[in-house]
Amino acid sequence: MCGIVGYIGTEQAAPILLSGLSKLEYRGYDSAGIAVYDGTKVNVAKTKGRLKVLTEQTHDGQKLPGKLGIGHTRWATHGSPSDMNAHPHANSDESIVVVHNGIIENYIKLKRKLEKKGYTFVSETDTEVIAHLLDYYYRGNPLEAVTKIMHRMEGSYALGILFKDHPNELYAVRKDSPLIVGHTKGGSIIASDVPAVLKYTRDVYFIENEEIVRMTESEMEFFTVDEEPLQKEPVHIDWDENAAEKGGYEHFMLKEMYEQPKAITDTFSPRLKNGDIVIDELGMSDGDIREIRKIMIVACGSAYHTGVTGKYVFEGLARIPVEVDLASEFRYRDPILDEGTLVVVISQSGETADSLAALREAKARGRRVLGIVNVVGSSIAREADNVMYTWAGPEIAVATTKAYSCQLIALYLLAMKFAKVRGMISESELEEMITELKKIPAQVEMLLNNKDRIQKFANRYLAAKNIFFIGRGIDYAISLEGSLKLKEISYIHSEAYAAGELKHGTISLIEDGTLVTALVTQEELYKKTISNIVEVKTRGAFVMAVTNTGNTDVEKAADYVVYIPKTNKYFANSLAIIPLQLFGYYVSVGRGCDVDKPRNLAKSVTVE
Amino acid sequence: MCGIVGYIGTEQAAPILLSGLSKLEYRGYDSAGIAVYDGTKVNVAKTKGRLKVLTEQTHDGQKLPGKLGIGHTRWATHGSPSDMNAHPHANSDESIVVVHNGIIENYIKLKRKLEKKGYTFVSETDTEVIAHLLDYYYRGNPLEAVTKIMHRMEGSYALGILFKDHPNELYAVRKDSPLIVGHTKGGSIIASDVPAVLKYTRDVYFIENEEIVRMTESEMEFFTVDEEPLQKEPVHIDWDENAAEKGGYEHFMLKEMYEQPKAITDTFSPRLKNGDIVIDELGMSDGDIREIRKIMIVACGSAYHTGVTGKYVFEGLARIPVEVDLASEFRYRDPILDEGTLVVVISQSGETADSLAALREAKARGRRVLGIVNVVGSSIAREADNVMYTWAGPEIAVATTKAYSCQLIALYLLAMKFAKVRGMISESELEEMITELKKIPAQVEMLLNNKDRIQKFANRYLAAKNIFFIGRGIDYAISLEGSLKLKEISYIHSEAYAAGELKHGTISLIEDGTLVTALVTQEELYKKTISNIVEVKTRGAFVMAVTNTGNTDVEKAADYVVYIPKTNKYFANSLAIIPLQLFGYYVSVGRGCDVDKPRNLAKSVTVE
Repeated sequence: MCGIVGYIGTEQAAPILLSGLSKLEYRGYDSAGIAVYDGTKVNVAKTKGRLKVLTEQTHDGQKLPGKLGIGHTRWATHGSPSDMNAHPHANSDESIVVVHNGIIENYIKLKRKLEKKGYTFVSETDTEVIAHLLDYYYRGNPLEAVTKIMHRMEGSYALGILFKDHPNELYAVRKDSPLIVGHTKGGSIIASDVPAVLKYTRDVYFIENEEIVRMTESEMEFFTVDEEPLQKEPVHIDWDENAAEKGGYEHFMLKEMYEQPKAITDTFSPRLKNGDIVIDELGMSDGDIREIRKIMIVACGSAYHTGVTGKYVFEGLARIPVEVDLASEFRYRDPILDEGTLVVVISQSGETADSLAALREAKARGRRVLGIVNVVGSSIAREADNVMYTWAGPEIAVATTKAYSCQLIALYLLAMKFAKVRGMISESELEEMITELKKIPAQVEMLLNNKDRIQKFANRYLAAKNIFFIGRGIDYAISLEGSLKLKEISYIHSEAYAAGELKHGTISLIEDGTLVTALVTQEELYKKTISNIVEVKTRGAFVMAVTNTGNTDVEKAADYVVYIPKTNKYFANSLAIIPLQLFGYYVSVGRGCDVDKPRNLAKSVTVE
Repeated sequence: MCGIVGYIGTEQAAPILLSGLSKLEYRGYDSAGIAVYDGTKVNVAKTKGRLKVLTEQTHDGQKLPGKLGIGHTRWATHGSPSDMNAHPHANSDESIVVVHNGIIENYIKLKRKLEKKGYTFVSETDTEVIAHLLDYYYRGNPLEAVTKIMHRMEGSYALGILFKDHPNELYAVRKDSPLIVGHTKGGSIIASDVPAVLKYTRDVYFIENEEIVRMTESEMEFFTVDEEPLQKEPVHIDWDENAAEKGGYEHFMLKEMYEQPKAITDTFSPRLKNGDIVIDELGMSDGDIREIRKIMIVACGSAYHTGVTGKYVFEGLARIPVEVDLASEFRYRDPILDEGTLVVVISQSGETADSLAALREAKARGRRVLGIVNVVGSSIAREADNVMYTWAGPEIAVATTKAYSCQLIALYLLAMKFAKVRGMISESELEEMITELKKIPAQVEMLLNNKDRIQKFANRYLAAKNIFFIGRGIDYAISLEGSLKLKEISYIHSEAYAAGELKHGTISLIEDGTLVTALVTQEELYKKTISNIVEVKTRGAFVMAVTNTGNTDVEKAADYVVYIPKTNKYFANSLAIIPLQLFGYYVSVGRGCDVDKPRNLAKSVTVE
């Protein structure tokens, strides 16, 4: 996800901005830029690609004089990675310059409004809207303009803003995207995250939602969105620099698990409009959606597991037959793709070689391909007929958590949309589902906060040789991912089974004390799965069950129960996976494994 | 498979027949019967169900006087298990009585011919044809009649025959079904297998194909099909009785593996007629077959794995989309079964609870269900709209081998038939495939004879903790079964992966010395799978590869190579599975596990 920095002070700004940005590289980015006011005008340098290119172009920043500036590393969301789309962005006369982290959900509406008023846009970004909107509201008072745009914008944002008219001031503001500020020796600094400022200060102010900062080289003033002054205390940071990049988390994986509530919100909220689901990027009319005769989901690894869940959701909700295939199999299968088949390719990186090849195979056979992709501008995003982005932000840990969670949300949205259009669910059913969907982020957060209990439990299984995960229906799909999460980072051989299938062979592996994790979230399958729990218990297994609050029957059968809030049955995966992610994580930590970079594995598998 | 006994001598026949049959119970049966000549007429007692019932009905045989008789335990093949269909069968005036083990493949043709000549049939069996056919050819010389019917019958048979006109003689003959004879104290005895006679003699004659025996209470004469006398030497048996039931094999599993060539032949040969595939029991016209829009295969365990292979075969050959589902999942999935969907349920026992419930679900939704079942008259056989039997005979070992192999054959036959009818393969392509199909039994036998080499290799992995099986396409389906075969009887945690998918997580489990078994039978995937072999080798894996003769490239990548004969690509599973069965078997034996009855498992899973 994007990184922003800003500086005002007694030293040259550009080198400080570049140094700060280099500390934010871990967040992932595809272009970078800085803007510095030299006393006469604002000079902008920006480029697609590595920060190193920008550093070389500007001679380590030396080529840009001036002591007031902002900088940015961009992880493309709206608009492909390009020089033009890189930040900073400015209004037409370059008197107001902005860097932005987050997503302005209503940017299209705002853009149209501004265009009507004669504003012209040079980039495809949502951020450029902010610069023009500030221009529109600016009447000489920056603070007033900032609060006005805050009332107009929906979505998430952390902004660094400079106004040429106010060369001794630098502005910052945030909503749902991180931002910190602090004093350097002789100046003030803004950054998305602690590592960018550690070189200059260890006392920082964490900006809260809808707070605005006006800073000069020596002063720092805080305001509410109503322009009322605020008192804030700095926090002393004693992290080492390494830890800092992880935002204080021990591992990226844990950090990314904690980013799930926001990532989920970012993925669904731009697509919920007036009680309906709007997925413009789908490029399909209602008529097109009604003509779908089959959905073929193609993916690898965890993305494949979301596809397995997707099958249950699409078939259950929209009554469209779904086939889920491993990308590495699909492409060599000479697959039958009849007319009316929509091919959905799911990939975090958008560069997964097998998935990309599958996409090309499907296109060569004349089928429409929808990509569900996290990295904007990636190959799959570019080559798919249409792309629906998951807004998880950059994922560093090899074992996916937040990207997986966002893929699920994307599939839910699609299935709900299709079900609605095809008349399989009513308006009120859709409304209820949307209500439940909106609760997921808070529910995930609550489950994450139970981490200590899961850690204690995990510590009992550090020496396990074999662990099984069982479930029926969607619970089977959850089991697949829970098992993979554990095995890929802990190197314990775990395996997922459809709960009813275990007795057809694999149950012979169950012996005294073998841990079996049972997923029991689907009400109509409670009893059947409990029978399967009893089967393995009888053979000596120790059973951890994950079930819905209130389903206390499970306690009679299982040895250890983790409860998740009740949600719509199709959404259960989004909640039940959280304790399993935590379990895998803590087993790996306890065994001293390299959690973020497990042996033999690559984050983005760009080979076949 | 059926068991037969026969006796002529100085003692009462019935108790000896019942005692012999009791020793053949292990072969599996669903009805039993005996026929004894009392000096005036032949008295028959037969009943559906357990032998115990027959024993009680006849007061341990006391109710049937006479010193010449034959007996039978029937494992239903043609015609459901019933009193009427139970053996012995007789001609109309009950002067010629027969017991039969095997399948008369051209029985329908023979039956029609006999009916035209005025013969009437009381049972649905193929065996009754033999009795009437003997009647038709009998002109006072039993030996002549027997050789005449041998020229007329196609298929496999072991027969015990008594002619009322020749009360001092008992006849036996065999082709492709086992038969032994021997002298008791004061008599002669026939049996399907050694255990039935051990109580009376340890010196037996093994009857070879197309040999005929004429015995009296004291003499034993052997003839060729041309009525030429033969000299035969008895063989002394020193097995204990337990071993005897396994025909000298250490375990039923090994015995059943060795029965595969015959079981495969029995399954395809009745359906090959004049260069075409004829599956009358399908009950579908060519028009019906052309209207199939989708095939839904539903099964559990190994039968499910044959379904995974079936998907590749049906889609590749006949271009009909196939979905394969676990029965335990299917029934609770609220599956989408559009019109034109043929549901195929596969089960050895025909009593698998999940599969039976899936069948009922499919029927309730108005879809045609085809059962592929081994046990005749079982619930699935009875409830399916149509049933295609696998002629594997009874399978005792919990880990399936021959039933699995026969299920594959049934699916090949169906796919070839469908492909032919739908115009996807030409007559000459079909012909070539049939030629390859017919080679499979001999090829399997050859692979079984390599067992010592596999055993040596298996002995190196007795202490393995984790073993992986990888393959692409059909090779993935083979991997699934190879892995299950190993894990269910050795309790080593093995897992099968689509070769291209391993790198998306599970490859992190590979460490120095981990055994990875790679299936490399599909020519167009050779290179891709070899790349995957190199990937795991690089991480330290020891790789055993199973590939086609001539594909020596694999030797450069893998550590140990097992070659299988080249066959049609869709049939590779039938050959490649043999070394994997042997591997699983010998690992289990080496670890001292209970091979035939692994812990926690049941042969026929009649619970959900």
